[in-house]
Amino acid sequence: MSLPTFAASELAARFGLELRGEDRTVTGVGTLADAGPGQLGFLANPRYRCQLASTGAGVVVLRANDADAFPGTALVSRDPYVTFARIAALFERKPAHAPGIHPTAFVDPDAAVDPTACIGPHASVGARSRVHARAVVGPGCVVGEDCEVGEDCELQARVTLLTRVRLGKRVRILPGAVLGAAGFGLAMDAGRWVNVPQLGGVVVGDDCEIGANTTIDRGALGDTVLEEDVRLDNQIQIGHNVRIGAHTAMAGCAAVAGSAKIGRHCLIGGAAGILGHLEVCDRVVVTAMSLVTHSIREPGEYSSGTPLMDNRSWRKSAARFKQLDRIARRSPDGGKDNE
Amino acid sequence: MSLPTFAASELAARFGLELRGEDRTVTGVGTLADAGPGQLGFLANPRYRCQLASTGAGVVVLRANDADAFPGTALVSRDPYVTFARIAALFERKPAHAPGIHPTAFVDPDAAVDPTACIGPHASVGARSRVHARAVVGPGCVVGEDCEVGEDCELQARVTLLTRVRLGKRVRILPGAVLGAAGFGLAMDAGRWVNVPQLGGVVVGDDCEIGANTTIDRGALGDTVLEEDVRLDNQIQIGHNVRIGAHTAMAGCAAVAGSAKIGRHCLIGGAAGILGHLEVCDRVVVTAMSLVTHSIREPGEYSSGTPLMDNRSWRKSAARFKQLDRIARRSPDGGKDNE
Amino acid sequence: MSLPTFAASELAARFGLELRGEDRTVTGVGTLADAGPGQLGFLANPRYRCQLASTGAGVVVLRANDADAFPGTALVSRDPYVTFARIAALFERKPAHAPGIHPTAFVDPDAAVDPTACIGPHASVGARSRVHARAVVGPGCVVGEDCEVGEDCELQARVTLLTRVRLGKRVRILPGAVLGAAGFGLAMDAGRWVNVPQLGGVVVGDDCEIGANTTIDRGALGDTVLEEDVRLDNQIQIGHNVRIGAHTAMAGCAAVAGSAKIGRHCLIGGAAGILGHLEVCDRVVVTAMSLVTHSIREPGEYSSGTPLMDNRSWRKSAARFKQLDRIARRSPDGGKDNE
Repeated sequence: MSLPTFAASELAARFGLELRGEDRTVTGVGTLADAGPGQLGFLANPRYRCQLASTGAGVVVLRANDADAFPGTALVSRDPYVTFARIAALFERKPAHAPGIHPTAFVDPDAAVDPTACIGPHASVGARSRVHARAVVGPGCVVGEDCEVGEDCELQARVTLLTRVRLGKRVRILPGAVLGAAGFGLAMDAGRWVNVPQLGGVVVGDDCEIGANTTIDRGALGDTVLEEDVRLDNQIQIGHNVRIGAHTAMAGCAAVAGSAKIGRHCLIGGAAGILGHLEVCDRVVVTAMSLVTHSIREPGEYSSGTPLMDNRSWRKSAARFKQLDRIARRSPDGGKDNE
Repeated sequence: MSLPTFAASELAARFGLELRGEDRTVTGVGTLADAGPGQLGFLANPRYRCQLASTGAGVVVLRANDADAFPGTALVSRDPYVTFARIAALFERKPAHAPGIHPTAFVDPDAAVDPTACIGPHASVGARSRVHARAVVGPGCVVGEDCEVGEDCELQARVTLLTRVRLGKRVRILPGAVLGAAGFGLAMDAGRWVNVPQLGGVVVGDDCEIGANTTIDRGALGDTVLEEDVRLDNQIQIGHNVRIGAHTAMAGCAAVAGSAKIGRHCLIGGAAGILGHLEVCDRVVVTAMSLVTHSIREPGEYSSGTPLMDNRSWRKSAARFKQLDRIARRSPDGGKDNE
Repeated sequence: MSLPTFAASELAARFGLELRGEDRTVTGVGTLADAGPGQLGFLANPRYRCQLASTGAGVVVLRANDADAFPGTALVSRDPYVTFARIAALFERKPAHAPGIHPTAFVDPDAAVDPTACIGPHASVGARSRVHARAVVGPGCVVGEDCEVGEDCELQARVTLLTRVRLGKRVRILPGAVLGAAGFGLAMDAGRWVNVPQLGGVVVGDDCEIGANTTIDRGALGDTVLEEDVRLDNQIQIGHNVRIGAHTAMAGCAAVAGSAKIGRHCLIGGAAGILGHLEVCDRVVVTAMSLVTHSIREPGEYSSGTPLMDNRSWRKSAARFKQLDRIARRSPDGGKDNE
């Protein structure tokens, strides 16, 4: 397989960048610290500015003010990280997906698969499901009944859409994710659990991405909804009837309980939790491992937890945490303000 | 596929309810806020009582005292949520599971599959495993060696029973769950890890439900045990030799370390953790993201963690947490009671 | 299948142990509490010393000082737990893996599978991937493109190596694990997310073990690396470009964000989190559910969080936590030391 090469001037023209210094050939990308003379690096985060002087990268993407101090070949961008992402995509080796249904796959006679779609080895597509143009259902995927896989979607491998899952266009789902399983709805009757039927589905907007082994339950009544361009990392749990606003991103292991509504352009940190039936407004940042226990109505950054300490010191603070109300009451004016 | 319809009077007779108002036809179910005239809604949580006046639902399931104020067609129940669950089940569209072994499935010659069981596409059943009457082993499931799938069990899709897993009757397992993998048993020998063999199995009682991508390790010596009617949500981790009492429910992302014993009728919140070798008695509630670090011998509700704050305020409290022992010592009488 | 039996003297010779008391036949292993006369038990943890007098075990592995007080047949070891692990392995029934490619498996014409390797039912191996001698790719596994499965590796069932994953020798991967999926790299461009291509791979050293449903993302530039003998429990998330030092073990549900570097011989507790771009030095212990928010440069034990309390008391402490800065300022000298 031949590797792609580009002239720096070609990249400048393609992405609307200013080229400074002599034109050079780019055969790949790398970090400032590791890139060689045939590679293109980038400077986005100011903390790496010190690496600019010593970088071996043949070409560097950077901002105008950084370019002034750089003697080598530069591509000047207002947003070097975005520009780097677009250039790096040129060097990405993607698996080939030949259209058609693999001989080991199984497609239910009542399913509809577009002839340009690819159904991989050991994949199955159930009754009344539709797979649209150029979509990929990768090896070992299970598309159950009454599902829709939109144009240019990519279910990479071993993805399950259990039932009533409708994906928009260009949705990318990483291996092991499960969409459309029953939400956790239980009623207690005379000491035993009764399942509350989960009659809804899952609706995923265009351009969403769903991480490996992430789970998104279908709605109880009505649907669980991801608006467009939502980005979920790995091992995230989304409960039934949750709604996540457009362009919100959640880091790995975060969890959202049933019927919570999350706004647009939120950033939810790793392993953060959001309790059920809450509302989080647009442009909220929740830091890693924080637990959202009430609705958030103001944009901003929110946290819970305690800082990391050496275990011996932590034990002392932890023991005092248990006495905190007493300590506060004893302090001057302490009794008054237990809000 | 024709949709089922029921007269309200028919539902009253079937579930032992009192019908008030004119009889009406029910073609589906919904929330009080969204249901239309052909749909049945319910009022269980008093906070939704205000929706009763404006609901478009043709029929409402509610308690007698709420029925007095409702002019429409009512079905009076002592437990409207349970009644709703049972009525909603009538409208659930379940996938059809034709008995027999799918041509793409693989069953080991030394396995035994009941002729009324369904083995789906790309499923496999290993040596010395038995699948009993009316059980479903869905698409992409792997049943390894020496397993037992009880009557009317449902392994929905891509479930793995690795080895020595014995399921009771009517156990439902959601996609991606893994039962019977080796527990995390390690011994350090001259600076390298040695695996401690995991010789036991997993025993799951009747009517248990296990969520998507949940993992239950097999025992080291003896078995990991779920008693009957245990309900586990998605992405839960159960370590080797754990025992979970009947009717206990755990929310998503909870984790239980090896050899912990959890009582009956407990409710474990989302992402809560329970350390190994502990005992938790019956009827304990652990709130979301709490960590159980010692045995619990009294029923009740338990918590750890700190409340959600805006990040700026949280940083101040977090910094003070580190000083807590000093602050306590300085406070009047503070030095005495660091228990 | 006949069960193995061993004379205690045979075990003594094989593992270099001292035999005390009469020779006996061992047909299995168990705990001191449960073992019968044909079984071998062990005493490693002093808290179980009290069980020695009453054990029914025919043979006990223990330290010399414990052996003095034990009248039965003893095998004396300097490390009874390690010795027990090695003896127990003799009684482990492992699934048989016949060499060859199962008729339901799919191997790409451009892949190379050693004739002594086993490719199980419904497994697939993609283009340019190699499976080396005696390796097992179990039922439902997906090995994508450009992967390498080293000698004697075991992918147990439904494991995914998506792309550019290189496993050393004797790596064991439990069901549902996903290696080599794209890391979570995003850039915001005019209000929409742009994917940052993830061009690297995953490199796993010899003798590593990776738990069920654990996910390890491939690097963005360069690789995500596990050095030799790293042990990861279930449902762990490892971000792109993380490096984990040799002999480090992580318990279930732990998570490491992108580009963190973890040292050798560390022990990371269950559901602990490590933020991105940090360094953790060798021989660090992080307790369960702690969050590592800064680099750790000294070996030792580290923690965060608060202790478990009854919910009523916890609510009081939690409310006071919010006031902590004010409480500290009011305390004698409190204003000075908000470091």
